[in-house]
Amino acid sequence: MRDIAVFSGSAHPELAAEICAQLGAALNPVRIQRFANDCLEVQLQANCREHDVFLIQPIVPPVQEHLVELFLMLDAARGASAARITVVMPHYAYARSDKKDAPRISIGGRLMADLLTTAGANRVLAMTLHSPQVHGFFSVPVDQLHALRELAAHFQGRDLSNTVVVSPDLGNAKPASAFARMLGVPVAAGAKQRFADDKVTITAIIGEVEGRDIIVLDDEIAKGSTLIELMDRLRERDARSIRIACTHGLFADDALRRLGDQPDVEEIVCTNTVPLADGTGHPKLTVLSVAPLLAEAIRRIHNGESVSALFHDA
Amino acid sequence: MRDIAVFSGSAHPELAAEICAQLGAALNPVRIQRFANDCLEVQLQANCREHDVFLIQPIVPPVQEHLVELFLMLDAARGASAARITVVMPHYAYARSDKKDAPRISIGGRLMADLLTTAGANRVLAMTLHSPQVHGFFSVPVDQLHALRELAAHFQGRDLSNTVVVSPDLGNAKPASAFARMLGVPVAAGAKQRFADDKVTITAIIGEVEGRDIIVLDDEIAKGSTLIELMDRLRERDARSIRIACTHGLFADDALRRLGDQPDVEEIVCTNTVPLADGTGHPKLTVLSVAPLLAEAIRRIHNGESVSALFHDA
Amino acid sequence: MRDIAVFSGSAHPELAAEICAQLGAALNPVRIQRFANDCLEVQLQANCREHDVFLIQPIVPPVQEHLVELFLMLDAARGASAARITVVMPHYAYARSDKKDAPRISIGGRLMADLLTTAGANRVLAMTLHSPQVHGFFSVPVDQLHALRELAAHFQGRDLSNTVVVSPDLGNAKPASAFARMLGVPVAAGAKQRFADDKVTITAIIGEVEGRDIIVLDDEIAKGSTLIELMDRLRERDARSIRIACTHGLFADDALRRLGDQPDVEEIVCTNTVPLADGTGHPKLTVLSVAPLLAEAIRRIHNGESVSALFHDA
Amino acid sequence: MRDIAVFSGSAHPELAAEICAQLGAALNPVRIQRFANDCLEVQLQANCREHDVFLIQPIVPPVQEHLVELFLMLDAARGASAARITVVMPHYAYARSDKKDAPRISIGGRLMADLLTTAGANRVLAMTLHSPQVHGFFSVPVDQLHALRELAAHFQGRDLSNTVVVSPDLGNAKPASAFARMLGVPVAAGAKQRFADDKVTITAIIGEVEGRDIIVLDDEIAKGSTLIELMDRLRERDARSIRIACTHGLFADDALRRLGDQPDVEEIVCTNTVPLADGTGHPKLTVLSVAPLLAEAIRRIHNGESVSALFHDA
Amino acid sequence: MRDIAVFSGSAHPELAAEICAQLGAALNPVRIQRFANDCLEVQLQANCREHDVFLIQPIVPPVQEHLVELFLMLDAARGASAARITVVMPHYAYARSDKKDAPRISIGGRLMADLLTTAGANRVLAMTLHSPQVHGFFSVPVDQLHALRELAAHFQGRDLSNTVVVSPDLGNAKPASAFARMLGVPVAAGAKQRFADDKVTITAIIGEVEGRDIIVLDDEIAKGSTLIELMDRLRERDARSIRIACTHGLFADDALRRLGDQPDVEEIVCTNTVPLADGTGHPKLTVLSVAPLLAEAIRRIHNGESVSALFHDA
Amino acid sequence: MRDIAVFSGSAHPELAAEICAQLGAALNPVRIQRFANDCLEVQLQANCREHDVFLIQPIVPPVQEHLVELFLMLDAARGASAARITVVMPHYAYARSDKKDAPRISIGGRLMADLLTTAGANRVLAMTLHSPQVHGFFSVPVDQLHALRELAAHFQGRDLSNTVVVSPDLGNAKPASAFARMLGVPVAAGAKQRFADDKVTITAIIGEVEGRDIIVLDDEIAKGSTLIELMDRLRERDARSIRIACTHGLFADDALRRLGDQPDVEEIVCTNTVPLADGTGHPKLTVLSVAPLLAEAIRRIHNGESVSALFHDA
Repeated sequence: MRDIAVFSGSAHPELAAEICAQLGAALNPVRIQRFANDCLEVQLQANCREHDVFLIQPIVPPVQEHLVELFLMLDAARGASAARITVVMPHYAYARSDKKDAPRISIGGRLMADLLTTAGANRVLAMTLHSPQVHGFFSVPVDQLHALRELAAHFQGRDLSNTVVVSPDLGNAKPASAFARMLGVPVAAGAKQRFADDKVTITAIIGEVEGRDIIVLDDEIAKGSTLIELMDRLRERDARSIRIACTHGLFADDALRRLGDQPDVEEIVCTNTVPLADGTGHPKLTVLSVAPLLAEAIRRIHNGESVSALFHDA
Repeated sequence: MRDIAVFSGSAHPELAAEICAQLGAALNPVRIQRFANDCLEVQLQANCREHDVFLIQPIVPPVQEHLVELFLMLDAARGASAARITVVMPHYAYARSDKKDAPRISIGGRLMADLLTTAGANRVLAMTLHSPQVHGFFSVPVDQLHALRELAAHFQGRDLSNTVVVSPDLGNAKPASAFARMLGVPVAAGAKQRFADDKVTITAIIGEVEGRDIIVLDDEIAKGSTLIELMDRLRERDARSIRIACTHGLFADDALRRLGDQPDVEEIVCTNTVPLADGTGHPKLTVLSVAPLLAEAIRRIHNGESVSALFHDA
Repeated sequence: MRDIAVFSGSAHPELAAEICAQLGAALNPVRIQRFANDCLEVQLQANCREHDVFLIQPIVPPVQEHLVELFLMLDAARGASAARITVVMPHYAYARSDKKDAPRISIGGRLMADLLTTAGANRVLAMTLHSPQVHGFFSVPVDQLHALRELAAHFQGRDLSNTVVVSPDLGNAKPASAFARMLGVPVAAGAKQRFADDKVTITAIIGEVEGRDIIVLDDEIAKGSTLIELMDRLRERDARSIRIACTHGLFADDALRRLGDQPDVEEIVCTNTVPLADGTGHPKLTVLSVAPLLAEAIRRIHNGESVSALFHDA
Repeated sequence: MRDIAVFSGSAHPELAAEICAQLGAALNPVRIQRFANDCLEVQLQANCREHDVFLIQPIVPPVQEHLVELFLMLDAARGASAARITVVMPHYAYARSDKKDAPRISIGGRLMADLLTTAGANRVLAMTLHSPQVHGFFSVPVDQLHALRELAAHFQGRDLSNTVVVSPDLGNAKPASAFARMLGVPVAAGAKQRFADDKVTITAIIGEVEGRDIIVLDDEIAKGSTLIELMDRLRERDARSIRIACTHGLFADDALRRLGDQPDVEEIVCTNTVPLADGTGHPKLTVLSVAPLLAEAIRRIHNGESVSALFHDA
Repeated sequence: MRDIAVFSGSAHPELAAEICAQLGAALNPVRIQRFANDCLEVQLQANCREHDVFLIQPIVPPVQEHLVELFLMLDAARGASAARITVVMPHYAYARSDKKDAPRISIGGRLMADLLTTAGANRVLAMTLHSPQVHGFFSVPVDQLHALRELAAHFQGRDLSNTVVVSPDLGNAKPASAFARMLGVPVAAGAKQRFADDKVTITAIIGEVEGRDIIVLDDEIAKGSTLIELMDRLRERDARSIRIACTHGLFADDALRRLGDQPDVEEIVCTNTVPLADGTGHPKLTVLSVAPLLAEAIRRIHNGESVSALFHDA
Repeated sequence: MRDIAVFSGSAHPELAAEICAQLGAALNPVRIQRFANDCLEVQLQANCREHDVFLIQPIVPPVQEHLVELFLMLDAARGASAARITVVMPHYAYARSDKKDAPRISIGGRLMADLLTTAGANRVLAMTLHSPQVHGFFSVPVDQLHALRELAAHFQGRDLSNTVVVSPDLGNAKPASAFARMLGVPVAAGAKQRFADDKVTITAIIGEVEGRDIIVLDDEIAKGSTLIELMDRLRERDARSIRIACTHGLFADDALRRLGDQPDVEEIVCTNTVPLADGTGHPKLTVLSVAPLLAEAIRRIHNGESVSALFHDA
């Protein structure tokens, strides 16, 4: 079989290193140079010829820098005769640009998918895309992973007898339901209603939350405004305690501090699909690693084993 | 400017005729022949050369026949040197296949979009696609219309003082909210919860419905199971009367009769984006025509005027 | 080497099963679902990742259903990271749409070839395409097989001393000549003349047929009208007996009964590239299996051995 | 409307000049330069920007030179911002390479069609392609003309009471039939039989030819071997006189002299789709001009009028 | 004719405004929004449908931001049914990445050209690309302008009797020669020698410079290191005075101050293809506007008039 | 691993044979046929299925014939299911057409690169392309070799104490510098100045050449005019002896004789990337073989080993 060759862009080298350690593969060096005119040059510093190349780059801030860097890496690998190039993209920020809700805008999630393909991507390994339809924006095969088991494992073993999982968005409650089943607890959901174009409010909570220990599960936390509002509703309904779990902990605009400093928030759990925004963290924050999961998926992709089997027999 | 040339496939010739009447353009004849080996041949029977060609074909049952017929029309128009080819697709059935919720299936909404482009589509005029992300499945420009004004006009002028608009799905309540604003009434929504992979139930209704006259608004009614369930919830909450409004009235599996025969359903309103399944209708059914709307959009597309302006300054 | 993975659409599962038995490979299960709105969903129920995938689907009635089903299978296999996808298409109905004999029609044989490629086909394995130019409609590699040896083997061993092979169409007499050489007998041909756009008649037979035992060889029998006419000519020329052999036995519009019930037709021989139209057959009909031939071609394609060698050293 | 801009390659400047005279359009100058390393450079010496560009170049010997020259002209016109580029290709030599009759050869007719498209062709205007399926090799729109009316006009007005039109190939007798209808005379055909891979012989003539004045109609005469053989059959059947008419008079290997020097050949008529091979002609040869026909087709293409109407109302 | 619609990205709105003023066309508003996750959204705020759209965006620092912004504008214009989209790119920074001088790097100039095309660019209007071959990196038509006349006009009218134009690079002395011809003065050139991979030095000056008033002409000044070195050589050769002229005044790393503060530099002249890096300028700096030139080119592109005529009849 | 299959076009079979001998691989037979209408047919006469195919064809005169022949070979290999097709193109004549130095011409180097890709090339192995930017004209991976070591080896071992390497073109002096380093001698360069569009003259020589033994190094010699001029300059500067070394010895228009007959030219050395123009050679000419280098590159490409490593550790 073709050999594997893993490279990392500058977006999240720590995650790349951890994946390679799990995988038992070298993380090959990459030289990134910025010229006087601000153009980038990326050199993959190991033989790619006829190799099964994996380029690890979550699309996180500075998003435009990391995107163009990834385009350059893809083209370099293709020009260097890689046998196959898989973009390992644990977070895909442009997935949120998934519809045309105003005239004369781009659907960025589709555009960037097309540009990645033009640049040389043969396939994509992603995690928890913003909406399930985003998968269909790619013309190349996509394997989409989810971190629910990793998040569930964090809570398993504790006393969950009084616990309820709450989804902030009833319309997207499917992952929360699956998560609740893993924990053996009930599920509830906030009714996130968009009564006008520019205003989404949580008007109600469906399900029992009074006196319960809450685990809020969301796919991504950016500024955290929805969660703040959800917690107001939970307090009105006399929830006993609140924990927060999510896959992508972006924590923009000081969100981590704003959430963490709320007295009744006991714990915030996220994964390392994106690097911590400020590098500092918070005493209540636990970051779980998705490196073992990504490493196993890479191993299966490389060996031609089923990736969906990772999820469907639990 | 290039002349316009409109053709209709066999899916919904009545709608095509009405659009052309509105547009003041001829509906050009099409010869569709089926050979002994079941292959189709479609001949566009008017000059297409350097014309601005519009092919009207909603993708409705028999879906596969209508799709392939449309592919053949597109290729015929392209081969006949059309200047531009717009698919007028008032209903796009494969839009419901918008995600990969099982391994090794196709995302049909994306695939058919790609095939339409390969066959020769330069642009698409659609109505109320199943999810807003489906727009991003197309690599050619899409104009998406909505029939909310047409549906609202049907109710305006009546006594709506006790009326509430109800969306069956809180997660998709945006159109219902816009619709309620047009009518000057409040909005409520069913909480459609998917607690497991295979089971969606409406567990609650958010908003005031007791003693109210209800107008349920949905994008499409296929078998109508969700509506049946919603009406059970509305009855539990002592709604006074129920009307049903939707854009795409597919009414599969005798759904029109099953809904219409419910005593407290006073009226069912849909549009003619799809032909009536059995051609018979129901005493309680009113079918509104979207032909004027589609004709106006075609006129604007042909003349290079803004289509989004149709919606955004009302 | 990559493993093989064979799937069958719903067009001809019996042939697929027989091919797999010959090949010693599993016929993997496929789930085909039809939704309330008549859309299809196809799930390939075995791992395709990095496999050498073969999708068996002759394009036979209902042609449009089987085509779209095949598009969905192709896209599913591609999205599931198949290493290579070969369409095994023992009959390609749209090959008859191979020219533009009227203005503003599609050349369906080219269009469907392009759509198959867009949907994901990397290569095609076909049998006896309607005209040799159809090969050039495909932008992907095509291996075209012929069943002449299988048909010849059926007659070998009999007393052929008084036999003549007759091609209904002098312009396409090459296969009949090859067939006659295999049997060691002379060849004759009907002069199929198209004196006007819409009328083809057989006006003469070139070669000796008086008092002979005739084997008519054709590539495909649909309604059989040409054969009926040819037999009239043969009777005028006092042929002694008539046998009919063809590759694709479509037998549309009760053609099998109409041909078989002619008293001087002693035997009809076809292959199983297409399923029997009515499932019943006829006492004079013998169906030869091309499964061993297709299995051997698949084996060679999978192993990188010459397929043309199957034909050129006999 | 966009202005027209016509250019000619070096293959047949006389025809181009005649077309332009008919069209009332300037034939713009082209500079063709051959470098020391044998590479060609072609400069279109008139503004192409937003023009409707027509490039006239039959693919005639030296075929490879003329092909590459055409590729360079196409790319130059595209790079110069032509609005649309039509290749006017009165003869397409590679159309004869239309099937894969040996393993591991290219189907040249398809390949060159693809290369023309890559180089920039938006559409093609062709005449009497070798087989009707070749039309399907092009992915861009093709208008195919025929010179039957021009050839018929040459004979009309003469005493045709004893005349029969003979097609050398019964399988392709459709044009001869149409031609005979134009002249109001009967049609006959040679039975061109291919009994082995490498040998085609004319074994019989279908129809009455004894004592008749024959007009043989063929699409193209290259070496003329088939015609020589056909004339032997005609003499055996006591034809009274022989005239020869064809569209493409290639006359390779001194064919014009070999045919013209036969005493009973009274006349040879061809068109000027290709330049005369040796520039000298023959006393019995008449060359009809297709320039008016091509000019009219160009005019219609430019103005968006139907080209098929040129043929279908005769 | 289609109407024109001009938009500007955020790279150089002043230049865009000036171009539009010259052109007598409105500069349409663009809304650029940055989301919490650092993704961009660009809305073109005027009707693009069937318009001839021009997007003005030099690729200047921050290069990656401006590139992605341009991709989004292109896709938005395409999705909004623009008739044609021209990228007006007065500076293309990635043109310097024009060769593969190390293994496993991308040729960025080609890659970005491909990505611009994928995003929707139909044509490009550029100025003074780094090397003439970069033109060939684009698959869409490119019009390349030069600012030599504008630069020459600045010096014309002065006493140039003692003046010599000096090109820093003998290998690229063609523009300097043309520039000198415009001024009616001699030309000289620095011998820029690359004796090793990483070191370029100017070893000599070819031509007379002693006692002369020098105008150094370069295409682009980034850090200015080459010019510093050239001036050392000029001083060694006793040049009398030094002026500097260039098209693209990038002036990275404080280059403007470093050059301007040299006592014998009397004047620095550049154009406004790029915005001034620090916005402040220098007392010795004159910035000439290329807006009239770009406006005239846009006018000609829009009207289908020759752009090359702008340069070749002077 | 896939087996290797090497074929040669008719451009340089001797080189192909030598490469295969070095490689220890068979040179498979190719049948090239020219039809009466001047079309070519190329048959690859060995199994290509799933093979790693290498097609050896330098683009040398007659350039157009060899190009089209190569297109046909590529398409044949692709249609025959080659696993990968590498064009081995030791000389690429159209690389000199690398810029648009006149309006409305094609950039032939880019166009032919695109056509090669359309015809089926998956990758290219080239030698010493005319300019480094030409690499970027290809959308498929290119490995570019250089023959400097082979040329240097020819001179090593001689007394080089008085030797200087001279590049005719200071702007392209990088290869000469590398060559001089290999020989351990100094480098000089002619100042090739293009003061007008149509006139290039060598005005000076930078570096010490008086009394020295000169080795002129150029990439390619076509008509040799530049070298003649350079030698005039060298004589003016009293060089002691002159040797000439180049990679591509095209020697057009009797250049070999004209150069060789100059009395002070002691030796001319080139490689066999192109066949000798007249087949005769010259007493002073030595032709070095690049077959070992090309064979080693093919071996590495086939085995997935680094090709750049061939150059970067010397």
